[in-house]
Amino acid sequence: MKKVEPKTLSGFMELMPKDQVLFNHVKHIIESTYESYGFYPLDTPVVEDANVLLAKAGGETEKQIYAFKKGDNDLALRFDLTVPLAKYVAARSNDLIFPFKRYQIGKVYRGERPQKGRFREFYQCDIDVIGNETLSLKYDAEMPRIIYDIFKTLDFGPFTIYLNNRKILSGYFEYLNLTDKISDILRIIDKLDKIGEENVILTLKDLSIDEDKIKGIIKFININGKPLEIIKSLKELNIDNELFNLGVSELEEVIKALYAFGLDDNYFAINLTIARGLDYYTGTVYETKLNEYPSLGSICSGGRYDNLAEYYTDQKLPGVGISIGLTRLFDQLLDAGIIKNNLKSSIDVIILPMTDNLAYINKYAECLRSMAYNVDTIYTNKFKQAIKYASRQEVKYALIIGDDEVSKNVAMLKNMETGDQEEVTIDNICQKIK
Amino acid sequence: MKKVEPKTLSGFMELMPKDQVLFNHVKHIIESTYESYGFYPLDTPVVEDANVLLAKAGGETEKQIYAFKKGDNDLALRFDLTVPLAKYVAARSNDLIFPFKRYQIGKVYRGERPQKGRFREFYQCDIDVIGNETLSLKYDAEMPRIIYDIFKTLDFGPFTIYLNNRKILSGYFEYLNLTDKISDILRIIDKLDKIGEENVILTLKDLSIDEDKIKGIIKFININGKPLEIIKSLKELNIDNELFNLGVSELEEVIKALYAFGLDDNYFAINLTIARGLDYYTGTVYETKLNEYPSLGSICSGGRYDNLAEYYTDQKLPGVGISIGLTRLFDQLLDAGIIKNNLKSSIDVIILPMTDNLAYINKYAECLRSMAYNVDTIYTNKFKQAIKYASRQEVKYALIIGDDEVSKNVAMLKNMETGDQEEVTIDNICQKIK
Repeated sequence: MKKVEPKTLSGFMELMPKDQVLFNHVKHIIESTYESYGFYPLDTPVVEDANVLLAKAGGETEKQIYAFKKGDNDLALRFDLTVPLAKYVAARSNDLIFPFKRYQIGKVYRGERPQKGRFREFYQCDIDVIGNETLSLKYDAEMPRIIYDIFKTLDFGPFTIYLNNRKILSGYFEYLNLTDKISDILRIIDKLDKIGEENVILTLKDLSIDEDKIKGIIKFININGKPLEIIKSLKELNIDNELFNLGVSELEEVIKALYAFGLDDNYFAINLTIARGLDYYTGTVYETKLNEYPSLGSICSGGRYDNLAEYYTDQKLPGVGISIGLTRLFDQLLDAGIIKNNLKSSIDVIILPMTDNLAYINKYAECLRSMAYNVDTIYTNKFKQAIKYASRQEVKYALIIGDDEVSKNVAMLKNMETGDQEEVTIDNICQKIK
Repeated sequence: MKKVEPKTLSGFMELMPKDQVLFNHVKHIIESTYESYGFYPLDTPVVEDANVLLAKAGGETEKQIYAFKKGDNDLALRFDLTVPLAKYVAARSNDLIFPFKRYQIGKVYRGERPQKGRFREFYQCDIDVIGNETLSLKYDAEMPRIIYDIFKTLDFGPFTIYLNNRKILSGYFEYLNLTDKISDILRIIDKLDKIGEENVILTLKDLSIDEDKIKGIIKFININGKPLEIIKSLKELNIDNELFNLGVSELEEVIKALYAFGLDDNYFAINLTIARGLDYYTGTVYETKLNEYPSLGSICSGGRYDNLAEYYTDQKLPGVGISIGLTRLFDQLLDAGIIKNNLKSSIDVIILPMTDNLAYINKYAECLRSMAYNVDTIYTNKFKQAIKYASRQEVKYALIIGDDEVSKNVAMLKNMETGDQEEVTIDNICQKIK
């Protein structure tokens, strides 16, 4: 028979079993932290009606979309989890309880050119809080609080959650009479980290902005210090613009709530250059970086938006959300050696039955499972093969049970790390395994 | 702005938040049981190269497939989790540890005509053990053992796992010199439950089979009794056919192992008519039914196959596996009222801050989270609105904290079911909440 090459598409992550265990471990921490803050799980289809999915899209996103026909239907694979959320909330706004807090961890699809660290299928881990008409700013502070818990637990080293408020930027440029150029200027400022200050100045000059104003802009985005010092400096600019001052007071409220939540300001900071590319953020915006790995870019981003679902409904649904791009993060952390495979195995004990007395084997297996251990059993008559299997699995304990053990009503517990063996009984086995 | 209707495609499940919590609860039981038997998680792409995915497909499956082009690539959405497993194992057979035990819980896609209880996107929850060249029959007994644990824990009422062995059927018809008609006969027998004995006889006659042989076939498939009685009856037929006798002895070994594993035969039985539609099963086959809901059909099926990956490799990779069709099962159980939403909420406590002292609020929230409670906080200044939110969420406890409580260093714990309120301190709150 002619064989087909069993290849996996490039840009699609597929892990070896032990890496998959590690990936799931990271995913589980994200998931359980989201749940611990009262967020509901949501699971929307991967395939949607193309018109629904593309109601808002355009430009780069639309080009990257996986769109296709099935029968007469125009379908597409979701490219993020925000559009499905908007659809979901718009369709069910009469039945949902607001503020609606949901998390969703799922795969999304973008036909980007595949390259190292870029995926065409990747997990996003989103949380959003959606209000009906209004939504307290306290939720803007809850987001970094949750992200802090997650990255503390994940233990990938020091990290910083950067905050800004889009109103401060928009208001400032309104004040400078540069409103018509706001989106261009924001886009340029957003690249400060990547292209450097000089290139920002040059690019701003290309927009025919006065040198005085450019000097002001550069001074403005270089304001630094601890969060409340920055707030103070912003106030001292005495900018006569309503939007600007609203942004400053919103940011101040969020920052103060973060301190009240007990967050150490080694873990958060204001960065006035963050605008976020997406055009629907209207208030608080977030980025998160690992201090020791700035080249990874933002590993967790999001912000506040005024209208989640304006393409589907007239209802005003303001929200705030944040997303972790898990696939890319995991891939990079694994590459950089930050994630260490210290889990070794998802299996706690492997039983090696060297007897036909399966009922006896089962007694030990059941006892261990009832103590929440994961128990594998390797069925082979060849002891050498069984012990090799246990060794390759890198489990800590093997439980060897032959006819001798059955007759003595014990089992032989082998510590696979030290090689030590000792007889255990069904009553003391769980004390022996830690 | 013209609005797009926020509709979800028909045949694609999308649940309300509390039903989603319930769905995840069921999924979690399946997942953690699979893990407790030492199975590794696997997560393969939803999108695959169409040639890889369709290496084996044909007929009905191929028509149902979601296939499309992106650039020059022929792509398709996976229609089961077995083909991706075959690809995965064939591609990595040098690096995997055999027997390779993996579970995969993921969505698959089939463009069936949408109708009640049929989905185009649905979860399959698969476990398989793959051997290299050989694989012990004990693994065939491990499958029902695991399924038993799952359905006992899920508590959907009494169920029966039906077993058969394809070799018994194939050997018997070889013995009757009906080998050329085996696949037709098996297909007809497989429908016994649906079309009844008389129609089976009529359809067999259409195949021009002697009446004597038909009588024999009917007698054969009507053999019943406890599993070991059926084995005895099969042996007493004195069929002079190697395949038949191998099938009987395999089934006997599996049945005896199930008894050794402590399984009560109220939960398993031999059903000689089970052949399973798929043509790659070669030994043990399984179906599972809820005794009180036979109309649901088999909720969990699978079997033993000799060659997992023959389309990709010459390597002999025998395996045994079983799959739960979770989406359809969940939908039907919810409809039938078998799954009751007694979870009510995934949230344990909702905090109602009626003070600006967020640090004080945070102290209680952190304490409760550290005890593994899921804690929501409703940020609004309006008490009525906050208590209505807590009531609609159907949580058991609300924790009301106003300035009075702050000054007394307490919080007001309200049991939302009884309406009782009592003052609690940070030290005794966890005792009060059960």
